[in-house]
Amino acid sequence: MRILFAATCALALATAAFAQEVEAPPPSPSEIVSLAPTDDWIAIDPENLVVMTLPPLEDGTERKVVMQLIGAPFSQGWVANIRTLARAKYWDGSQILRVQDNYVVQWGQPDPEMGVEPKPVPEGLKVMTEGEYTAGSPNWLTGPVLQAKRQPQVFEDWPAPMMTDAYADFASFRDGWPIAGVQGMHLARQWPVHCYGMVGVGRNMSPDTGDGSQLYTVIGHAPRHLDRNIAVVGRIVEGIEHLSSLPRGTGPLGFYEDESKRVPIVSVRMAADMPESERPRFEYLSTASESFARYADARANRRDPFFIQPAGGADVCNIPVPVRRTDAE
Amino acid sequence: MRILFAATCALALATAAFAQEVEAPPPSPSEIVSLAPTDDWIAIDPENLVVMTLPPLEDGTERKVVMQLIGAPFSQGWVANIRTLARAKYWDGSQILRVQDNYVVQWGQPDPEMGVEPKPVPEGLKVMTEGEYTAGSPNWLTGPVLQAKRQPQVFEDWPAPMMTDAYADFASFRDGWPIAGVQGMHLARQWPVHCYGMVGVGRNMSPDTGDGSQLYTVIGHAPRHLDRNIAVVGRIVEGIEHLSSLPRGTGPLGFYEDESKRVPIVSVRMAADMPESERPRFEYLSTASESFARYADARANRRDPFFIQPAGGADVCNIPVPVRRTDAE
Repeated sequence: MRILFAATCALALATAAFAQEVEAPPPSPSEIVSLAPTDDWIAIDPENLVVMTLPPLEDGTERKVVMQLIGAPFSQGWVANIRTLARAKYWDGSQILRVQDNYVVQWGQPDPEMGVEPKPVPEGLKVMTEGEYTAGSPNWLTGPVLQAKRQPQVFEDWPAPMMTDAYADFASFRDGWPIAGVQGMHLARQWPVHCYGMVGVGRNMSPDTGDGSQLYTVIGHAPRHLDRNIAVVGRIVEGIEHLSSLPRGTGPLGFYEDESKRVPIVSVRMAADMPESERPRFEYLSTASESFARYADARANRRDPFFIQPAGGADVCNIPVPVRRTDAE
Repeated sequence: MRILFAATCALALATAAFAQEVEAPPPSPSEIVSLAPTDDWIAIDPENLVVMTLPPLEDGTERKVVMQLIGAPFSQGWVANIRTLARAKYWDGSQILRVQDNYVVQWGQPDPEMGVEPKPVPEGLKVMTEGEYTAGSPNWLTGPVLQAKRQPQVFEDWPAPMMTDAYADFASFRDGWPIAGVQGMHLARQWPVHCYGMVGVGRNMSPDTGDGSQLYTVIGHAPRHLDRNIAVVGRIVEGIEHLSSLPRGTGPLGFYEDESKRVPIVSVRMAADMPESERPRFEYLSTASESFARYADARANRRDPFFIQPAGGADVCNIPVPVRRTDAE
């Protein structure tokens, strides 16, 4: 297995050429992203966009949170359930139940033990097994796993930057999502990872896997110990500040003890079901593109003027996949 | 070099013995911490505790933020400046200037370009070089660096769990602080790392290194690319939620565009200068203790009942050093 594209070298060459022409400093990661050609961006299907509306703040600030659902092969049963729940308007009138500092914000209908009659979930929700927290993958990685370095590297058989990882044999990206994976003689599995802003499915004790009716998002350092223990179904692509800046709950695990502190959820809708004029539109930078490889390299080796010492590596959650709005808003 | 204490094996043995007696599930990380003997806890010197008071919230909630300053050999010039600035009451009447989601909260006196006459800093502040972002260390690590694994391991010559790291040759802990380090033939350096809640010193472009008059704390995924580029001087040990839950600034880098949004800082005081009765008291779990090694192992391999798949590793910022109050509060 051969390294197809050594991002570091390519960037060094590109930078050298650039410097001769205009003597500009090396581009920052965001400059690399803003210069990416249109073809490197991939539109997000409105069937994979979910809009959660909270009441406006006292000063009139609107609060909308937009979530992108993950694609195959990951968590597809839960993703289907989320579409079903949104279309049944299950979350309308539900609440933000829990805000735990440096951990998660969790929302949904209150649990029965909170003293509220539970709202019935719609019919037809799928039931998943714990095996579906991860997805199988071809067992092709023997070479690169052994060679995986802190520096993001692109290999011939896996067209996205790959790095060593503290939690798995490697970390990388797949179709726009941060993932990790393990290799073995008879087992190769991959899974989406718990980075900041990723969304997972609340569950009870094993073997329960959750039906998707309570969701959470990460608002702190990546709690990667949750990987493979919970279904990851997507990420917040806009408005996470409306969740991450909420007052922390004072009960165990950050649950709000005082019910009046729970922010009500006005509505949760699939973007695909909204009128064309109101539909938010987003696109993400293809993680298989050369632009993304350059961006990942620049995140791992900051050369823009503020920095004096490039790190020489980065963890997968410190290379957030660029996502941007494409409508006027 | 020999592995002194394989935390995994020790824990497995301890757990097996424990299980035979009471058939309890394996302890969670927090249970391990709560069972640590008194001798494993180290009191924090009040000369290393700084109390920042913000105005109470509208509902009367008090807002105090307590910072622990880092000890030698790290950042000692900046730490001395912070004591000088606190004792000169420099920060009284200053403001929270910047809240950037998944990044930092920054405070201090406004910059001149914000249109405010700058408050003069006290005399006698030290000036540091960029070389002081890191500290030298004996070049003893050739063995363990080659052997460093995802699993936290304790080596004979370094009495704290050591793991591989995406940003350095290894990550570990030193006198209660998360650190990382590089090895080389002629160069061995260590530095404190930018985990959630760590505090750093705002600076202008290189070669400026900052005087400590503007500080920031991390409120998102560890921005480890800042390591070795900025002085890390401590961590928030209580009250970070009063910073992390602030509204995000809407200007570039999360600066507040509307001056009225900046939360004023009532006072910043050294705990050592406060009356005995008001002084907060804290202690941290010795990172050289066997309790800490068991805790780190349990963070990397969650075996408590919720978990079905131990991660098999953890990054240094996902093993927060336990700190607790020891006064009645």
